[in-house]
Amino acid sequence: MKLRGRDVVSITDLSREELDELFRTARLMEERPSDYYGSLKGRILAVLFFEPSTRTRLSFEAAMKRLGGDVVGFSSVEGTSLMKGESFEDTVRTVEGYCDAMVIRHPAEGAAARAAELVEVPVINGGDGAREHPTQAMVDLYTIWRLRGSIDGVKVALLADLQHARTVNSLVLALSMYRDVKLLLATPGLRLRSEVYEEAVKRGVKVEEVGLKEAVKEAEVLYVTRVQRERLKSEEEYLRLKDAYRLDPSILKEARGDLIILHPLPRREELPIEVDSFKAAKYFQQAHLGVPVRMALLYEVMRGV
Amino acid sequence: MKLRGRDVVSITDLSREELDELFRTARLMEERPSDYYGSLKGRILAVLFFEPSTRTRLSFEAAMKRLGGDVVGFSSVEGTSLMKGESFEDTVRTVEGYCDAMVIRHPAEGAAARAAELVEVPVINGGDGAREHPTQAMVDLYTIWRLRGSIDGVKVALLADLQHARTVNSLVLALSMYRDVKLLLATPGLRLRSEVYEEAVKRGVKVEEVGLKEAVKEAEVLYVTRVQRERLKSEEEYLRLKDAYRLDPSILKEARGDLIILHPLPRREELPIEVDSFKAAKYFQQAHLGVPVRMALLYEVMRGV
Amino acid sequence: MKLRGRDVVSITDLSREELDELFRTARLMEERPSDYYGSLKGRILAVLFFEPSTRTRLSFEAAMKRLGGDVVGFSSVEGTSLMKGESFEDTVRTVEGYCDAMVIRHPAEGAAARAAELVEVPVINGGDGAREHPTQAMVDLYTIWRLRGSIDGVKVALLADLQHARTVNSLVLALSMYRDVKLLLATPGLRLRSEVYEEAVKRGVKVEEVGLKEAVKEAEVLYVTRVQRERLKSEEEYLRLKDAYRLDPSILKEARGDLIILHPLPRREELPIEVDSFKAAKYFQQAHLGVPVRMALLYEVMRGV
Repeated sequence: MKLRGRDVVSITDLSREELDELFRTARLMEERPSDYYGSLKGRILAVLFFEPSTRTRLSFEAAMKRLGGDVVGFSSVEGTSLMKGESFEDTVRTVEGYCDAMVIRHPAEGAAARAAELVEVPVINGGDGAREHPTQAMVDLYTIWRLRGSIDGVKVALLADLQHARTVNSLVLALSMYRDVKLLLATPGLRLRSEVYEEAVKRGVKVEEVGLKEAVKEAEVLYVTRVQRERLKSEEEYLRLKDAYRLDPSILKEARGDLIILHPLPRREELPIEVDSFKAAKYFQQAHLGVPVRMALLYEVMRGV
Repeated sequence: MKLRGRDVVSITDLSREELDELFRTARLMEERPSDYYGSLKGRILAVLFFEPSTRTRLSFEAAMKRLGGDVVGFSSVEGTSLMKGESFEDTVRTVEGYCDAMVIRHPAEGAAARAAELVEVPVINGGDGAREHPTQAMVDLYTIWRLRGSIDGVKVALLADLQHARTVNSLVLALSMYRDVKLLLATPGLRLRSEVYEEAVKRGVKVEEVGLKEAVKEAEVLYVTRVQRERLKSEEEYLRLKDAYRLDPSILKEARGDLIILHPLPRREELPIEVDSFKAAKYFQQAHLGVPVRMALLYEVMRGV
Repeated sequence: MKLRGRDVVSITDLSREELDELFRTARLMEERPSDYYGSLKGRILAVLFFEPSTRTRLSFEAAMKRLGGDVVGFSSVEGTSLMKGESFEDTVRTVEGYCDAMVIRHPAEGAAARAAELVEVPVINGGDGAREHPTQAMVDLYTIWRLRGSIDGVKVALLADLQHARTVNSLVLALSMYRDVKLLLATPGLRLRSEVYEEAVKRGVKVEEVGLKEAVKEAEVLYVTRVQRERLKSEEEYLRLKDAYRLDPSILKEARGDLIILHPLPRREELPIEVDSFKAAKYFQQAHLGVPVRMALLYEVMRGV
């Protein structure tokens, strides 16, 4: 693969062929993890998390360590020189010298792209504001591929906050690379960004706006997202929205027998814990698949760098 | 040993025979550490600390790394998705996919037990509220065994706050597995939990309530505990209690020549630094023995998992 | 070298010969890093950071991991037993048992020296209040040596806050070990500590107090420092001082063609980002050289400990 040394700022930095190859590598890593242990021995990944994270940070760290590599970094700005007023730019230009690649999560859109301009080592976007979260999209696609056998022809319903969820942007752009994909958008007014919507349509995705019930009934994959209180304008708006698209167990009666429910997590009220016992609930498996997918990505990007 | 893959939520999850074998392994690890380096290579321990810790977290991490393994996790909820309202349950179910075993410290009693119900990987209790702290009890017993040669027949005085100290609960339950143990309880009204007291008596421990002076005079092991301001009802109660059972150097004159003073640390006023220069002061050695004991535990639990 | 097992509390704990040998080792580590990978396998460095840091902590961690060793510790007191009132002394005496050497950063002058008295393992000062920062001085000297070919005979201008910058104290003491060094001090009243000044003069350094312009014109190395708001008496004083010694690109026109601009970072207004594009700007390279220098130091101190 030609991922060696490349930045991954947007999911569109990879082609469909590269995604497919990445998934084959991830599958091998699930099957024969010990074959890959030691393949990044002596290499260092910097994890720079300017915003809280559990899954992205810990799964990247676990992935790096499963490959025999190691990690330096921070999980919040507390305890760093950012407390003394150091700029983002100076921080990444400094840390560049301490690592072979870096993962960045930041509240500002474009932060990872900015870092990629500034430094020579590969930069992986671990989530930039409400814009993108490409490795989450890789995990989402990989989960669909593992559970459904293929991504071409899939019918995915996206629920709830499609406006502020960076995972949704990256997932829609990722799905657009596949054939015969149908998207069902079910949102209480928090609509997909126009540039993402248009890109999907341009690439041949069939997009339909539907109600929650229709989404549940039609979809092969239900992709639920959290209404992000921290990105909404008012507490009032949050209270109005948070229950509107709640995936109540009762409405799941109408779903297909082979339904797959995904969620990038963390979840709140939109995905009640009663759903956890349904066969369709695959979101913890999805979280766990973050490790082989990120192992594959680090392996392809960092080998021989 | 049959510890492989097992949870350690309570000290009573181990039998006396298993404790004895654990201590023999720990002793070998002290004597020939390099024999064990690499034995957990490629394995990952998750350390999930929802409450502050220095000794438990760092000694677990050091133990894991001394065995060639690695660690992922967090030392406070700051910087994790718990900040975005993620539940404890979702956090542990997620992290399960990133590790081969997990250590949990949490302010709520029963947190580790709850995690053990939810996940497949072994769960080790690193302290749950005021209930238990089994690996501290292992370190306490091991220290007594190393310094005294045996645990059977020991006379242990427990000082100060016996009500809120999880270390005391685990230690009393641990000592109850041995023969001819005598406990001297010296407390300013913060008495041992009744279920722990009753279990000890049932198992044949001789228990006596005594004053501070008598405890010091009689004991082979003085186990001092911190009056935990954060678990008391009022600042007034704290002020009244904190000096009442202070181990003043002057009262140590009455002690046996072979006295062993232990403390799970951190300490406050109850154990003045003047005591540090006494031959009996063994609490830093006790802290350091946390590494071989936890190495032995991780080795037995995680090998071949 | 005889650094094995020694404390590095002050830069004066090393002789000139030891510094020179350290730099030769660092150079080898830059050229053939893989020769050294694994040389500290199984060793643990404790990083105890009671104050924020990006460069010192992350470059020590990267250095240790590049040598195949590992790290335990904390990047802020948050999440440690210091939150429960544990003393600095008890913390270091405890952590001693978990590591083969420790790096300490602390807001109090003398903290590292105090730790070195208390523990057996080597203690490295990672910055103690406004007093010293010896490994930063090693990095500074090494950068000059790498870029200029030698340190003897160098003309160094020190700008801005010479009173509160521990890096300046350590650098001046370090330069005093070399021959024919000339120091140009340019400060808005925040003068070098008298004991450091006197030591430099006693050792034969020529010291001159100059204005900013003269400093820029004369110097081979311009060493810029941050005016440290957190160590000044008032916000008013900070506002008055912060721009007074700002290194404006316009005044750099007068500089020598081979000028080297260094800064320990983080920077604020005193070093405008417009300077970054100048050939003379070497401060990010300086930050990156922190890794080979600290690798060399850890290697020499920890080998065979």
